[in-house]
Amino acid sequence: MGRARDLALLGPRGINPQVGAIVLSPTGDVLAEGWHRGAGTPHAEVDALSRLAPGAARGATMVVTLEPCNHTGRTGPCALALIEAGVARVVYAVEDPAEVSGGGAERLRAHGIEVEPGVRADEIRTMIAGWLDAARRGRPHVSIKWAQSLDGRAAAADGSSRWITGPDARRDVHRRRADADAIVAGIGTILADDPALTARAEDGSLLPTQPLPVVLGRRGVPADAAVRRHPRELLHLDGTDLADALSQLRRRGIQRVFVEGGPTLAASFVRAGLADELLVYVSPILLGGPRVALDDVGVGSIAAARRFAFTDVRPLGADVLFTAVPADAPASDPSPQGGR
Amino acid sequence: MGRARDLALLGPRGINPQVGAIVLSPTGDVLAEGWHRGAGTPHAEVDALSRLAPGAARGATMVVTLEPCNHTGRTGPCALALIEAGVARVVYAVEDPAEVSGGGAERLRAHGIEVEPGVRADEIRTMIAGWLDAARRGRPHVSIKWAQSLDGRAAAADGSSRWITGPDARRDVHRRRADADAIVAGIGTILADDPALTARAEDGSLLPTQPLPVVLGRRGVPADAAVRRHPRELLHLDGTDLADALSQLRRRGIQRVFVEGGPTLAASFVRAGLADELLVYVSPILLGGPRVALDDVGVGSIAAARRFAFTDVRPLGADVLFTAVPADAPASDPSPQGGR
Repeated sequence: MGRARDLALLGPRGINPQVGAIVLSPTGDVLAEGWHRGAGTPHAEVDALSRLAPGAARGATMVVTLEPCNHTGRTGPCALALIEAGVARVVYAVEDPAEVSGGGAERLRAHGIEVEPGVRADEIRTMIAGWLDAARRGRPHVSIKWAQSLDGRAAAADGSSRWITGPDARRDVHRRRADADAIVAGIGTILADDPALTARAEDGSLLPTQPLPVVLGRRGVPADAAVRRHPRELLHLDGTDLADALSQLRRRGIQRVFVEGGPTLAASFVRAGLADELLVYVSPILLGGPRVALDDVGVGSIAAARRFAFTDVRPLGADVLFTAVPADAPASDPSPQGGR
Repeated sequence: MGRARDLALLGPRGINPQVGAIVLSPTGDVLAEGWHRGAGTPHAEVDALSRLAPGAARGATMVVTLEPCNHTGRTGPCALALIEAGVARVVYAVEDPAEVSGGGAERLRAHGIEVEPGVRADEIRTMIAGWLDAARRGRPHVSIKWAQSLDGRAAAADGSSRWITGPDARRDVHRRRADADAIVAGIGTILADDPALTARAEDGSLLPTQPLPVVLGRRGVPADAAVRRHPRELLHLDGTDLADALSQLRRRGIQRVFVEGGPTLAASFVRAGLADELLVYVSPILLGGPRVALDDVGVGSIAAARRFAFTDVRPLGADVLFTAVPADAPASDPSPQGGR
């Protein structure tokens, strides 16, 4: 299974999970290896089988990181391919959480194939946690980040805001940018602040992994905007329908979105109920004035407040980072929704 | 010294410190006891000496919680009274921090009196910490308290705000009210919210000690305002000059002020540089909208931000309490400024 995991990681993170598969002979020799190369290409099991001569997998064991699918999408169901290849035993780590593609193990057993589920499941589940999470939500996970003074302002009255928070907080932000698949800003913030939307080290150099830069809004991104010099090509979406924008991102394989979009965009995500996590960096300063860190979130009365729960409150140098999740967030057990 | 402390506590907290004094014979018998009963009345040493026949203190030891003063105010200098009484030895706990009244020990020694300073000094310093602090500042200590949503709002758009924070935070607030000498609100908050300004237990009953209720502002307090039913009589000050208001409070013996005055009054104290401590209760909700928890504090640019330092960040139920002090706050060693 360790080898299957390594194979899985050869494939891309995307709308489909990373999956690796190995065909073993009854004596334990490796007959073939395979992995999934992304949406529209063969699943890992079929990729491995395709490397064998017809009949060569008869009586063999298939070791695969994810339960073989039972679903005809852009490719046929893997369970059927395994049955037809005459595989005798299937060992897998994680169950397929999706309603449309699940049930593969049952189908295999019904055809007399020995099935051993749950092998190193935790390890593999961690490897594809982002995909499992996005599958459960039917969209990418959305973190909304902002920095504010203790009194909730993002800038002084004249618009100046560098730096509200200190170096420890900024380092934390850049690390989280690198961990995200996409970083999203509103066009207003692009025009006002000209952010690079890159993940950088303290010396300003680029970190090894960079999020996809995404700008939401109708207005154009200037030709000389810093975001156009991002190492990854800018994605500019209309953004009037945030759910649709997230769907588009998911189709591009985005599992985790980091929204650093300014007070208006942050409020739009909150208002739409699309804030899975708040990351609020609070500086021990008072600014007063009109430049609040979060705009109107559609709350008229205290009873309609958008309720969250603090999951972490952490000092970062002189600042404090609040992490919060929706108070009504479901438990983290994957309720099947997505497909692969 | 323990007995002298008990005597001190018989006197009132006020513009003058609580001081106790005992006259001991050379064989250690208690000849007389005294304590200070408040501004304009004799100091503790003179109070004790006044209970003896002329000459009865000759060769005696004076045990007193504070260094005998060397200052003629509403009463004569205690050092002189001790010299004239023929006291042979003076034992005291805490040095007089005030420039105008200090130097008593030196004067006693110059007249051949044996002086033993610093006896149980920490214990007595703790007892009169509020007075020492007010003496150092030349005014009462000011805590500014407010409750806010994570995004810095004190109320929803329609003004509703009950309850932004939960029972643990409210209990903490009432405990701090009971610990303060005065609770200050702006007339705007009195008219809008009709607060009682009492320190209450969870069942609504009054705690044993109550702060003096103070309202700042030109407009009148309605006859049926809840604050008029406060167990202590309301003090209504003009409030246009906050420093003057604090001087008036100090003259009434107020050492610790708890400002719960609403966004405008809180901002006024911050703008005037009169916020010695911020107590900000942050609830894990988002409200958006116009009702910010802190109004304009006179900051035009980020360089002019009012800078504080978090000294404590503490979960209180679902909420978090930030405690902050001015970033340029002097160290806590008393620099002599006041007098007694």
